[in-house]
Amino acid sequence: MTEAMTDTRLTNENPLTPEELAGLDAYWRAANYLSVGQIYLLDNPLLHEPLVAGHIKPRLLGHWGTTPGLNLIYAHMNRLIKQRDLNAIYITGPGHGGPGLVANAYLEGTYSEVYSHITPDETGLRKLFRQFSFPGGVPSHVAPETPGSIHEGGELGYALVHGYGAIFDNPDLIALTVVGDGEAETGPLAASWHSNKFVDPRRDGAVLPVLHLNGYKIANPTLLARIPEKQLVALMEGYGHKPYLVTGDDPEQVHQAFAAALESALDDIETIQRQARTGNPQSEPAWPMIVLRTPKGWTGPKTVDGHQVEGSWRSHQVPLSGTRNDDAHRAQLEEWLRSYRPEELFAPDGSLKPELAALAPEGDRRMSANPHTNGGLLTKALRLPDFRDYAVDVKEPGVTSSEATRQMGIWLRDVMQANPTNFRLMGPDEVASNRLSPVFEITDRAWDTGTVEGDDHLAPSGQVMEVLSEHLCQGWLEGYNLTGRHGLFTCYEAFIHIIDAMFNQHAKWLKTTSEIPWRRPIPSLNYLLTSHVWRQDHNGFSHQDPGFIDHVVNKKAEVVRVYLPPDANTLLSVTDHALRSTNYVNVIVAGKQPALNYLTMDEAIAHCTRGLGIWPWASNCDGEPDVVLACAGDIPTLETLAAVDLLRQHLPELKVRVINVVDLMRLQSESEHPHGLSDSEFDALFTADKPVVFAYHGYPTLIHRLTYRRRNHSNIHVRGYKEEGTTTTPFDMVMLNDLDRYRLAMDVIDRVPSLGSSKAVLRQKLDDARITARAYTREHGEDAPEIANWSWPYSDTDASGSSEQE
Amino acid sequence: MTEAMTDTRLTNENPLTPEELAGLDAYWRAANYLSVGQIYLLDNPLLHEPLVAGHIKPRLLGHWGTTPGLNLIYAHMNRLIKQRDLNAIYITGPGHGGPGLVANAYLEGTYSEVYSHITPDETGLRKLFRQFSFPGGVPSHVAPETPGSIHEGGELGYALVHGYGAIFDNPDLIALTVVGDGEAETGPLAASWHSNKFVDPRRDGAVLPVLHLNGYKIANPTLLARIPEKQLVALMEGYGHKPYLVTGDDPEQVHQAFAAALESALDDIETIQRQARTGNPQSEPAWPMIVLRTPKGWTGPKTVDGHQVEGSWRSHQVPLSGTRNDDAHRAQLEEWLRSYRPEELFAPDGSLKPELAALAPEGDRRMSANPHTNGGLLTKALRLPDFRDYAVDVKEPGVTSSEATRQMGIWLRDVMQANPTNFRLMGPDEVASNRLSPVFEITDRAWDTGTVEGDDHLAPSGQVMEVLSEHLCQGWLEGYNLTGRHGLFTCYEAFIHIIDAMFNQHAKWLKTTSEIPWRRPIPSLNYLLTSHVWRQDHNGFSHQDPGFIDHVVNKKAEVVRVYLPPDANTLLSVTDHALRSTNYVNVIVAGKQPALNYLTMDEAIAHCTRGLGIWPWASNCDGEPDVVLACAGDIPTLETLAAVDLLRQHLPELKVRVINVVDLMRLQSESEHPHGLSDSEFDALFTADKPVVFAYHGYPTLIHRLTYRRRNHSNIHVRGYKEEGTTTTPFDMVMLNDLDRYRLAMDVIDRVPSLGSSKAVLRQKLDDARITARAYTREHGEDAPEIANWSWPYSDTDASGSSEQE
Repeated sequence: MTEAMTDTRLTNENPLTPEELAGLDAYWRAANYLSVGQIYLLDNPLLHEPLVAGHIKPRLLGHWGTTPGLNLIYAHMNRLIKQRDLNAIYITGPGHGGPGLVANAYLEGTYSEVYSHITPDETGLRKLFRQFSFPGGVPSHVAPETPGSIHEGGELGYALVHGYGAIFDNPDLIALTVVGDGEAETGPLAASWHSNKFVDPRRDGAVLPVLHLNGYKIANPTLLARIPEKQLVALMEGYGHKPYLVTGDDPEQVHQAFAAALESALDDIETIQRQARTGNPQSEPAWPMIVLRTPKGWTGPKTVDGHQVEGSWRSHQVPLSGTRNDDAHRAQLEEWLRSYRPEELFAPDGSLKPELAALAPEGDRRMSANPHTNGGLLTKALRLPDFRDYAVDVKEPGVTSSEATRQMGIWLRDVMQANPTNFRLMGPDEVASNRLSPVFEITDRAWDTGTVEGDDHLAPSGQVMEVLSEHLCQGWLEGYNLTGRHGLFTCYEAFIHIIDAMFNQHAKWLKTTSEIPWRRPIPSLNYLLTSHVWRQDHNGFSHQDPGFIDHVVNKKAEVVRVYLPPDANTLLSVTDHALRSTNYVNVIVAGKQPALNYLTMDEAIAHCTRGLGIWPWASNCDGEPDVVLACAGDIPTLETLAAVDLLRQHLPELKVRVINVVDLMRLQSESEHPHGLSDSEFDALFTADKPVVFAYHGYPTLIHRLTYRRRNHSNIHVRGYKEEGTTTTPFDMVMLNDLDRYRLAMDVIDRVPSLGSSKAVLRQKLDDARITARAYTREHGEDAPEIANWSWPYSDTDASGSSEQE
Repeated sequence: MTEAMTDTRLTNENPLTPEELAGLDAYWRAANYLSVGQIYLLDNPLLHEPLVAGHIKPRLLGHWGTTPGLNLIYAHMNRLIKQRDLNAIYITGPGHGGPGLVANAYLEGTYSEVYSHITPDETGLRKLFRQFSFPGGVPSHVAPETPGSIHEGGELGYALVHGYGAIFDNPDLIALTVVGDGEAETGPLAASWHSNKFVDPRRDGAVLPVLHLNGYKIANPTLLARIPEKQLVALMEGYGHKPYLVTGDDPEQVHQAFAAALESALDDIETIQRQARTGNPQSEPAWPMIVLRTPKGWTGPKTVDGHQVEGSWRSHQVPLSGTRNDDAHRAQLEEWLRSYRPEELFAPDGSLKPELAALAPEGDRRMSANPHTNGGLLTKALRLPDFRDYAVDVKEPGVTSSEATRQMGIWLRDVMQANPTNFRLMGPDEVASNRLSPVFEITDRAWDTGTVEGDDHLAPSGQVMEVLSEHLCQGWLEGYNLTGRHGLFTCYEAFIHIIDAMFNQHAKWLKTTSEIPWRRPIPSLNYLLTSHVWRQDHNGFSHQDPGFIDHVVNKKAEVVRVYLPPDANTLLSVTDHALRSTNYVNVIVAGKQPALNYLTMDEAIAHCTRGLGIWPWASNCDGEPDVVLACAGDIPTLETLAAVDLLRQHLPELKVRVINVVDLMRLQSESEHPHGLSDSEFDALFTADKPVVFAYHGYPTLIHRLTYRRRNHSNIHVRGYKEEGTTTTPFDMVMLNDLDRYRLAMDVIDRVPSLGSSKAVLRQKLDDARITARAYTREHGEDAPEIANWSWPYSDTDASGSSEQE
C-alpha cells in the first residue's frame, strides 16, 4: 500500500494547489496533534518543555487507530464546505475517534464557544487535554458532549442510518458519514446501505458515505478490507452506489486523491439533485460513495517494542502504553507529537495560527456548529389538528366497537398533511396491517427504485417509510428526531425488541443531553406498539412478547413514558400528548382489532390527564370497596369488565372498584418517577388493605416492580402474560395465561374473605364455564359467541356510584 | 416475467426427462394441494364431494404467498438428494410458509411417524388440515412442532445464519436455505451473507442460499426484487457468491431452469469441497447461490373480486377470505384446489400414490427427518477437563487477585482442544480483549478470506468465530446448538441487548421443544458477559447496561439460568456446570479485570452448588445478625466486603452477616423458579425482620422483583446501577451509582435502629471519606491507592463465627 490510486471518472485528478495541499496537511496535523495530546497529556500541551512523567496522564484511555483518518476526512470536507458554501454535518461511525472530533470542534472555535473554560490558548489546551477520558471530564467516544455530533460512538452500526434520518426533508443538507470497517460488519449497517432507495433527490438532502478501511478492529482484520477489491466494488455497486476508491499511506498523494474523490462525489450529488429538481430526474441514480483505505494509526508510531503498530490492530487504543514510567516510550511519544510540528501550527500563546484558522468554515457552516446537530435549535412544533374532532362517539361505555389504530390513522393522516416536511411515519411493512392506512389518502410510501403497474402508494416523496427492518425504521427516526423533526414508529410489539439496544443508546443520549446546557430539547421518540401479544391469532407464540416495556423502564425515569390506552379515544389523547412532548421516549401500546369503546372524548382526556383512575360506571360502590379490580391495556380491560359483570351477576352484594391505568409510570412512587402517584393518592385509589386483582397487558412482575414500595403491595395480585400461547383464538390466549374473565373473578373470590359459604359453589361454576369455553373453542375453531361478542350490559345509571368520574 | 432464463454456466441446461418433469410437477402439486387444504379445510380433504360451507374453517389463518415457491424448491432438492445421496436439511427463511413444510413432512411420511394420529390416509388428512392454525393444533409458521425444522419462522432475518451454524463441523451437510426477499431487508440477514468467509471447505459443510424473490412483503414490494438485476447480481457477487438466476412463471420452464441451477450449484459445492479436501483449495471460493424469481402466490387465484392476487402482495395471507359464506369465493377455492388434480396424486383412501411417494428420499435422508434438525439426537457430551485442576490458589480470602476470565480462558483452551469439532467460541472481536486469549495457543480464528503477514491466528479451520456482529455470533451459535453441538458466546455486557430479540426466539424455541416428546434436548446456549457495566473505564456511559438479565428472566423459568460468580474459582465452577447442561440459556456475568479471589476451589464448588450462602469468614456473628449485607456480582462483592471492613472498624459490636449470591434464581420463590429457595430457607438466611442491604450488579429493581413475595421483603434495600456513568475510574463509577463501600456502610447505619448516638458522627465521617475519595480521583485521574488496592484485612480466624461455610 504505497501508491495513491486514481480513478478515471474523477472530475479533476490532482485538484490541490501546493498552497492548498500545505494548508490541508497543516490543518490535519493540528487535529492529529490535538488528538494525541488528549489521549496522553496532563500538562505541557505545546511541548514548550521536554516531556516528563508528570506531563502524562496516569491512566491512558482513548483510541488512536481510527483518528487520523477521521481528521483527514474532516479537513478535506472543510475545504469544500468553504469553497462551495455547503451545508454539511459529519457523522462519525467509528465512535472511537472521539479525540479527533473534539480536536476539530476546538480548531473551529466551537468548543470554546460552548465550553467557555476551554479557551483557545495554552490554558485552554491544557484543560482540553486533561479533561479527555478523565474523571469529571468528557467521554472518550464521540458523545452528546461533542459539538457537531448527533451520533454516539458507543454501540456500532448506526452511522449510515442516522445520516439518512438527518437528510430526509433537508434538501440542502449533506451528511458526510464515515463508516468504519468494523461497524460495516454489523447487521444494521449492512442493511443501511439500501437507505439510498428511500431518498428523494428533490426533497431530501444527501448522504455521502466514506467507508474508511483502516483494516482492523480491536484484535482482528476487517472483512471489507480483506475481500478482493473487485468484490468490494461489486458490493458497493450492488448497494446502488458509485464507489470512488482512494488508497494510500503517503499523505501528499492521499491528499490529492481524496480531494479529487471528494470533489467528484460532491459533483455527482449536485448533478443528481439538480437534475431531479429541474424536472429531469435520473432513474435509480447511483449515489456516490468513497472507499478510503489508509493505515490504522496512520502517522503514529510505526513500531513499539519491536511490534508493528501503524497499520495494525495494535494501534487501536493507546499505541504507547508506558509513557509515564518508561523513558523510551515517553521519548517516542514526544517524537510522535513533535512530528506534527506544533510550532508551525500554534502561536506561542497556544492559539491556532490565523492562516490555519482561516481554513475552517465559519459560523453555522462549521460542521461542529451546524444547527442540524443540535436539532432542538431547529425544532418546530407540529401543527396538530384537534384530536377531539376525531373522537369516536361513545354514548354508553363498553357497547360499541372501534379499531383504535384505524381511528388514530385518520388523525395521523391530517397530522401528516399539515406537516409535510416535519413528520415521518416509520414501519416495518406494517402501516396498513396496523390499520393506519388512512395516511395513504394524502401521502405515499417513500420509494425510489423500480415500480410496476398496480403498486400501492409508492413514490420518492412519500412521508411513510416502510422497510422490513426495525433497525432502519428506528435509526431513520432517530436521525430525523435528532435533527429536530417529528415522527412515529409503528411496530409489532414483539419485534420491537429487535431495537432494544438502539433504544438504550437513544435513551442514554437523551439523558445526557438533558444535562448539557447548550443542547436544546428535541422531539420525543414515539412508538406505537400494536399487533400486540394478545392478538397474534394467526402468528402465535413467536409473535408474543410484551417485554419492551420492562426494558424501557430500566432507563432514566426522566426520559421514559409508557401508555396503555384502553380504547380509541384514549389512544388519540395520549398520542396527541406524545407528539407535543420533547426529549422523551413515549411507548404507546394499543390494539388494532375491533375493541370496545369505553370513554367519550371528554372522559378520555380527563382519564389520560390523570393517567389512571376509578371507573365509577364500572364500579358498584362509592366508598371503600371490598375488592379493587385494576387493569392496564385493552385486552386486560375487556376481561376485567367481563369479570366484574360475572361478579355483579353472582355476587351483587360485593363492592367492586374498577381502576384503569393508562400511564403506567403513575404506579411508581413519586420519588422514582416524575409521574409517580404520592403514597396517599395511591392508597386512596388502591386502598390500604383490600385485595387488588390487577389484570396487566404484559409480564406480571412489572406491576410488582412498580408498586413494591406501596403500602398495600402484598395484597396486589397480578395476572398477565406468562409465556404461554400459540396460534389460537383471542379468548383461548387469555385462558392460557390465566388472564380471562373467569379466572379474574375466581381470583377475587379467592381473596375476599367475607364471601362465606357461597364461595366454593360459585368458584366451581366459574371454573366449569372456563372449561366449557375452552371446549367450545377447540371444537369450533372460534370463541363462543357470548364471549366473543360480550359487551358491558349495564347502563350508566345501574352503578350505585356517581356517574361522574372520580 | 414469462420466460425462464438460462445461464451459460450451467452444467446442463434442461436436465429433466419428461418423466422426471412430470413427477416433480406432480409432487409439487401434491405439496401445494396439502398447503391450501391446511389453510382452508375442516373436512372433505380429498374433495370427494363438492365443497360446502361446513367444510371450511370459520377463521382462515395462514399464509399462502410464499408457499408454492418453498414447495417447488423442496421437491427439486428431494430429487437431487435421491440422485446424489445428499445429506441435506431445509431452512425456511419465510416462516410464513408453514403449511408447505408441514405438507412436505407429511408427504415424506415423517409427520405420521412423529404424530401418530395424523395417519397417511383420509382420516389423517382431515386431521392434518383441521389442526393447522386451529385452537389446540399447530402454529401457522414453521415452528418447533414442524419436523425437519431448526428455524422458527416468526421473527425474520436469521435463516442464513442458522444455516451456517448448522454446517460448521458437519462436512457432509448441506443446508439448503431459502431466504425470503422480505427478510433479506433485515440487518441480520444482510450481514449474514458474509458468513461464507468463515466456512472451511475441508472441515465444514455448505450452505446453499436460495434467494426467493416473490416480490412482495405484507403490503409492499421488496427491495431486492425491484433493484435492477445488474445491481442484484453485483450485490451477490460482492457478498462473494456465484449467483444462478432462475426467473419464470411457467411451471414447466421453471422446473427445467431450477433443476439446472440446482444441479450446477451442487456441482460447484462439490468441486470447492473436493479441491479443498484433496489439498488443492480454491482461494476465496465463490460459493454458489440461486436467485429464484417466481410470482407470489403462484398457482393460486389470479384475481379475486377484480383485484390481482397471484403475483401481488394480496396473496400474502389467505387469498380468498369469504369462502365460508360467499359461494363465489368457495367455488373459486374449489377450482383452485382441483387445479392440482388431487385424484392424480392421492389414492381414494387418501394415501399418496406410490409413484409419488417413491420420489421422496428415505429414512434419515428425508429433510423432514434429518437428525441434524433434531440436534439432541446427535449431541455428544463435551469432554471436559477437570476444572478443579485450573483453580486459582486461594490461601486467604480477599487478598490475592486474578483476572477471572483469563483463568477461564486456560480451561476453555483445553476444553476446545478436547472437543475440536464439537465446541465453538463466538465473540464480536472481543475474545482477546476479554482475556480468553489462551485459546489461541491451540486454535485460531475461523477466517477464509484475505490474509497478510503478521495476522494473528487466522485460519479457515479456527474454532473461534469473531466478527463485529453480535447477530452473527448469536445466530451461528444457535444453529450450532440446534444441530446438537456446544459453544459459548462471549460479549460486552451492554451490547448483548443487540440480540435481545434473537434470545427471545431461542428461549421460546427451547420452551416449546421441551414440550414436544420427539424433540431431544440440545446443548444449552451459554453466554459469558464480561466487560461489564462497572468497568467501562475507557468506554463510558454508552457501554453500561446490565439489563440483559432483566430481559432474560421474563422468559420461562424452566429455560433460563443467571450466574454472577464473584471470583475466578466460582467462574470456573459455574461455567463447567453450564457446559454440562442442556435446553437452558445460561447467562454468566463476570469481570475481566484483576479482582480479588475469595474462595478456594472446594469452597467455590460448595458455594456454587448451593447458589448462594453466608460467607462466615466475612461475617462476625454466628447467630442472628443485626444486619445482613448481601451481594451479587464481582464489584458489588468487593464493595460489600470493604463496607464490612468499615463497619468492623467503626462499629465492632455490630453483628454483620454477609451473603453472596451466585445463582440469581435462588432468590425467587420455589413456586416461580425451579432453583428458588423455599421461604423457610430464605428466612433463615435473610432473616425475617432484620435490615438487608443488597449490593447488586445490575438494575436494583430486579432484586425487588425476585424477592417481593419474601417475608422480609420490605427490609431489603438494594443498591445497583442506576444509569449514571461516564468515562471514569472504577471507584468513581460505584460512587456515581451509590454502590460504593461508604454508601453501603451508611445504608447500614441508616437502617440499624440500635446504633444510638454514635450514628450521626460516623455517618458524617463516611460521607466525608466519600467526598475525599471523589476529590482525589478528580484531581489525580485515578483512585486513591488505599481504595484501589484495598484487600480483605482479616485473617480467617478474626471472625467471631465459625470458619466453615454455612
